[in-house]
Amino acid sequence: MNNITSYIKENKERFLNELQELLKIPSISADSAYSKDVLKTAEVIKISLSKAGCNLVEIHETAGYPIVYGEKIIDPKLPTVLVYGHYDVQPPDPIKLWDSPPFEPVIKKTALHPDGAIFARGACDDKGQMYMHVKALEFMTETDQLPCNVKFMIEGEEEVGSNNLALFVKENRNKLKNDIILISDTGMIANDVPSITTGLRGLSYVEVEITGPNRDLHSGLYGGAVANPINILSKMIASLHDENNHITIPGFYDKVEELSKAERAEMAKAPFSLDEYRKALDIDAVYGEEGYTTNERNSIRPTLDVNGIWGGYIGEGAKTVIASKAYAKISMRLVPNQDWEEITELFSKHFETIAPKGVTVKVTPHHGGQGYVTPIDTIGYQAANKAYTKTFGIPAIPQRSGGSIPIVSLFEEELESKTILMGFGLDSDAIHSPNEHFGVWNYLKGIETIPYFYKYFTEMNRS
Amino acid sequence: MNNITSYIKENKERFLNELQELLKIPSISADSAYSKDVLKTAEVIKISLSKAGCNLVEIHETAGYPIVYGEKIIDPKLPTVLVYGHYDVQPPDPIKLWDSPPFEPVIKKTALHPDGAIFARGACDDKGQMYMHVKALEFMTETDQLPCNVKFMIEGEEEVGSNNLALFVKENRNKLKNDIILISDTGMIANDVPSITTGLRGLSYVEVEITGPNRDLHSGLYGGAVANPINILSKMIASLHDENNHITIPGFYDKVEELSKAERAEMAKAPFSLDEYRKALDIDAVYGEEGYTTNERNSIRPTLDVNGIWGGYIGEGAKTVIASKAYAKISMRLVPNQDWEEITELFSKHFETIAPKGVTVKVTPHHGGQGYVTPIDTIGYQAANKAYTKTFGIPAIPQRSGGSIPIVSLFEEELESKTILMGFGLDSDAIHSPNEHFGVWNYLKGIETIPYFYKYFTEMNRS
Repeated sequence: MNNITSYIKENKERFLNELQELLKIPSISADSAYSKDVLKTAEVIKISLSKAGCNLVEIHETAGYPIVYGEKIIDPKLPTVLVYGHYDVQPPDPIKLWDSPPFEPVIKKTALHPDGAIFARGACDDKGQMYMHVKALEFMTETDQLPCNVKFMIEGEEEVGSNNLALFVKENRNKLKNDIILISDTGMIANDVPSITTGLRGLSYVEVEITGPNRDLHSGLYGGAVANPINILSKMIASLHDENNHITIPGFYDKVEELSKAERAEMAKAPFSLDEYRKALDIDAVYGEEGYTTNERNSIRPTLDVNGIWGGYIGEGAKTVIASKAYAKISMRLVPNQDWEEITELFSKHFETIAPKGVTVKVTPHHGGQGYVTPIDTIGYQAANKAYTKTFGIPAIPQRSGGSIPIVSLFEEELESKTILMGFGLDSDAIHSPNEHFGVWNYLKGIETIPYFYKYFTEMNRS
Repeated sequence: MNNITSYIKENKERFLNELQELLKIPSISADSAYSKDVLKTAEVIKISLSKAGCNLVEIHETAGYPIVYGEKIIDPKLPTVLVYGHYDVQPPDPIKLWDSPPFEPVIKKTALHPDGAIFARGACDDKGQMYMHVKALEFMTETDQLPCNVKFMIEGEEEVGSNNLALFVKENRNKLKNDIILISDTGMIANDVPSITTGLRGLSYVEVEITGPNRDLHSGLYGGAVANPINILSKMIASLHDENNHITIPGFYDKVEELSKAERAEMAKAPFSLDEYRKALDIDAVYGEEGYTTNERNSIRPTLDVNGIWGGYIGEGAKTVIASKAYAKISMRLVPNQDWEEITELFSKHFETIAPKGVTVKVTPHHGGQGYVTPIDTIGYQAANKAYTKTFGIPAIPQRSGGSIPIVSLFEEELESKTILMGFGLDSDAIHSPNEHFGVWNYLKGIETIPYFYKYFTEMNRS
């Protein structure tokens, strides 16, 4: 790839400005109050794809938010890369914990990002990482170095389960036909330790509602005499883990892929400092499933976490009330072979079973997706690894991520092609948290590395 | 008491209108946003006491909301009744469960209130019941039938712990000197089953905060590897009760007054239908401490209830986050001999002890108060019982209430006089809940019964 470093150097300011403009739009897919902004973001992506060189760009309406599709086909005989990303973002709350407004991007230096990082919701997940691909395409078309065909599929519902994308994929198998799917929606171990994500956890996300008495009650007159939905919900949640932090839902582990000693030993080689991990989170100890290391707990093991809980009086001061209802949002991260719909079913059955008399339970599935594991002996993986080696100077480490991109396993099923997860963010970039950011160096390094993937992938396919 | 029924009949509409005007002011002491309204309510009470015949009315400023004091001394040699009540109300939320706005009183008929009931926050607790005493005084002064001296002490912080009232009482022992304290801030069993409350539970109300990681985390990248404050809080709350629903805090039951078989048998005579109780609350079963009946569980036994819980993402849709913090408001109802400050101490110690590594715990006491039991062989109780017998046609049943009026035990301690709890509301009046109401019949019956208490109490003191 000729002149790539100089091209990036010359256009650095513009690359940063374009991304910051994109980050100013609060495209929060989970909150309908922002629907106009989500739709506006799709329009912006469409325009940026045309400018970057796509010769066909379309906005596909869905039952939810639209999918932006773009392509540049230079020769049907050449391989085709399908880039997937999303333009929607997580809700920013708790707002008060942000040092700067989530939708007013600012660049600040940090210990891990001495060249500065862009602070804004979506900076890393996924606007920043998705836009690297747009700018990489721009470079390849501007300099006539695009070695193969490329297709873009950018959706607006990744943070809420990608339900409509699944339908779109099923209905557009031909349009989306490709030889490899490329996604930057994961992280890497460190700026000097490039890694390629070879595994993702599946997800089952549910909301539960516990109803006790038909109205809020005075806790003095009724306290101790009726089932208190909040106490009961706490009891039920507590019972979902045993004393070894194993999940107690019957059948939950039946299909869990157990890694061999050798595989676990290989994993353990990834550089990791428990002290630094604890220090970064300001906790005196880690906590999790007995018999597994921290890196295993958040990658190869399924987990259950309450993401939100509420009920009763949560205002200022005190109210002596027994609430009629209590609620929780609960998500389970799943590992290969666990089917998210089956797990959702197992959870619902179990949760209803453990409810004592005096309350009723309602479980509402939110969304979910299967886990994914990709082999490392494929052309796709080798091409990616060669690209990292070229731009980072060292090969990438294969790494299982604890996160979920529910759609990936569906891609393999429907489009019959593998996915390469080239992530350039860091775990400490606080995605889904206040003060999310993305290193300027990482952003530009991604733009530099991606074209090499196209180059090597095309060459390896030829030979 | 001559012409009392005719006087009430002639002034019924005015009595109802005056109360409804009072109920229109949102005097929510727990929420500082309503401080102006709370202060305005004190002014309205002051004026109404003057109009009712008090020859001295004062507003006493405190560190919090003021105390309205009024008196009519007709002869120092005659006994003095001290009336206590409060003009502040509970927060109305959840607002959306109200059939009519909480501060726009309406009169509607109900199954238990065929003559209609006033629906509004504070209708029963305690504006309605407190105002009965103002109108009873009006009757006695207007018709020259006040048989003794009377003092009023109406506070604005009962719903938030009466902290400043305690100080006021200590500093004004002489001003408040009396022979009997009269309070209408409790209920009665049914309109055809008058009862006098002879016991109140104490209260300890705390707020707890669990802190895990120093920021909200992505539940995929960190799920299962760090202590999730919501899961931990649920576990800790669940552990506060054992499988028999006994409270597990060490020392919690040490000083609990155990009633004799005879006393429990006496209690059991109060009319009660478990079926109707369940039906009224729309629950398939009651729930509580093993070995005790429903009426015992909410009166003679101490209890622990979570009044509010919150943490993580509680908005629309889904957010895959591990919250940095989780919170709960927890209150314990205490029985005679349990000291609320000691119990608060025991709770705090225990709660901090059961926290696992990986989280920190903060317990903040809100407020509390001692329980209270009054003997039934006193002149005060006998006079009250005779008054009920006169106006209801049958004697009243002594009843232990599960509620708390923290200040009552302090009255006995500081003012060395007993308290008579003449309540005219029903448990089903939904105090502290949406659609709180107070029967028109009950309101007027209270105004009719109270003057007879003055009459009989004065006569019994003479003999």
